[in-house]
Amino acid sequence: MSDIADLTRRMRTFTEARDWARFHDPKSLVLALVGEVGELAELLQWLRHDEQAAAVSEQPLNGRLAEEMSDVLLYLLRLADVVGVDLAQAAADKLQANEDRFPPDDHRSVAPSKA
Amino acid sequence: MSDIADLTRRMRTFTEARDWARFHDPKSLVLALVGEVGELAELLQWLRHDEQAAAVSEQPLNGRLAEEMSDVLLYLLRLADVVGVDLAQAAADKLQANEDRFPPDDHRSVAPSKA
Amino acid sequence: MSDIADLTRRMRTFTEARDWARFHDPKSLVLALVGEVGELAELLQWLRHDEQAAAVSEQPLNGRLAEEMSDVLLYLLRLADVVGVDLAQAAADKLQANEDRFPPDDHRSVAPSKA
Amino acid sequence: MSDIADLTRRMRTFTEARDWARFHDPKSLVLALVGEVGELAELLQWLRHDEQAAAVSEQPLNGRLAEEMSDVLLYLLRLADVVGVDLAQAAADKLQANEDRFPPDDHRSVAPSKA
Repeated sequence: MSDIADLTRRMRTFTEARDWARFHDPKSLVLALVGEVGELAELLQWLRHDEQAAAVSEQPLNGRLAEEMSDVLLYLLRLADVVGVDLAQAAADKLQANEDRFPPDDHRSVAPSKA
Repeated sequence: MSDIADLTRRMRTFTEARDWARFHDPKSLVLALVGEVGELAELLQWLRHDEQAAAVSEQPLNGRLAEEMSDVLLYLLRLADVVGVDLAQAAADKLQANEDRFPPDDHRSVAPSKA
Repeated sequence: MSDIADLTRRMRTFTEARDWARFHDPKSLVLALVGEVGELAELLQWLRHDEQAAAVSEQPLNGRLAEEMSDVLLYLLRLADVVGVDLAQAAADKLQANEDRFPPDDHRSVAPSKA
Repeated sequence: MSDIADLTRRMRTFTEARDWARFHDPKSLVLALVGEVGELAELLQWLRHDEQAAAVSEQPLNGRLAEEMSDVLLYLLRLADVVGVDLAQAAADKLQANEDRFPPDDHRSVAPSKA
């Protein structure tokens, strides 16, 4: 089965069992997501560029990254549930759109510009 | 099949076809994730508290939220792939740990403290 | 004297005395800034909308907010120093540009759109 | 005079002239800050590590960084004003606390750990 749908359902059950849905308006959930992204950033901020590839694969850092990425994912799934978005479908659609928007031959080795 | 694994695999193929893996060190990917979280925040920032529940379900906002949440998810999956984390498993484990850490009867209606 | 210039100079001296400038490339500093913004978000995330105005003025929350906002400011000033931006001047210019861009009579009570 | 106090006062006047204070509760202001931090991150995300020092000093990137850092600063000053924090004083105090907490001889060349 879909693990995105499964994790979303488990987060909803977890939330409702504690009566925490009252805290989970969209703006508050984005702030919670930001908090977890901040913890993820802190794990990496001072890693030297040429050491980061090795460092992220070692413990305890790899396990800490797994935890913070999990927190980001769980809040993101909770937010999608609250705002009524099928995130598995939306992400598949977005990836398809990106594949169409950036033909490989035109964009090879060139970072997409945000400017 | 697992849609997290499937989206992760598609993101890897998408990246390699454009030779973009050279840009995808962990620190750069977290900055990209932050950029997408920022776009998500901008969509919600000035919504009135008592109007946000209705607003997020209406178009075009709902579709814009779906796009930005998709971007966050896709970069998160890409990061997990790069650092070698099985995010579906890690998130399931983290949710189980949260279930154990916050017994419903002790935490009903009380927001978990970060302090 | 300018307190932005004074704090910037003190941050530079603090950094150099510990030989930490080697860690302060722009991308790493933005990740550090994101970490502090995340801590700021965590302080507010679960506050009820109708209680936040009172809550932020009480201790210990007000002092905690002061600390996290200070961390954000200090990393921002450090980043500006590293990339060679006179932030006091740039912010005054940006505010002037915003004053010109949003004439009060045309924008009263309407949140500026980011869409 | 203090440029932090001066910019804070100008932001308050700017806000009140447009009747935008109604949007500026603390949680909404942090979301706005996050949006601007995201724009800052996007400017840097794909810069190669060994090219970033040169890149950030060139136009148009240097000017774009100045604008986004200004937006971050202006929202931060607005937030401090709304929550009743004297940010110039708080930042000076925090820097003093950091100077005491990290004696140079004990911390030379070693990035402070967040773990």
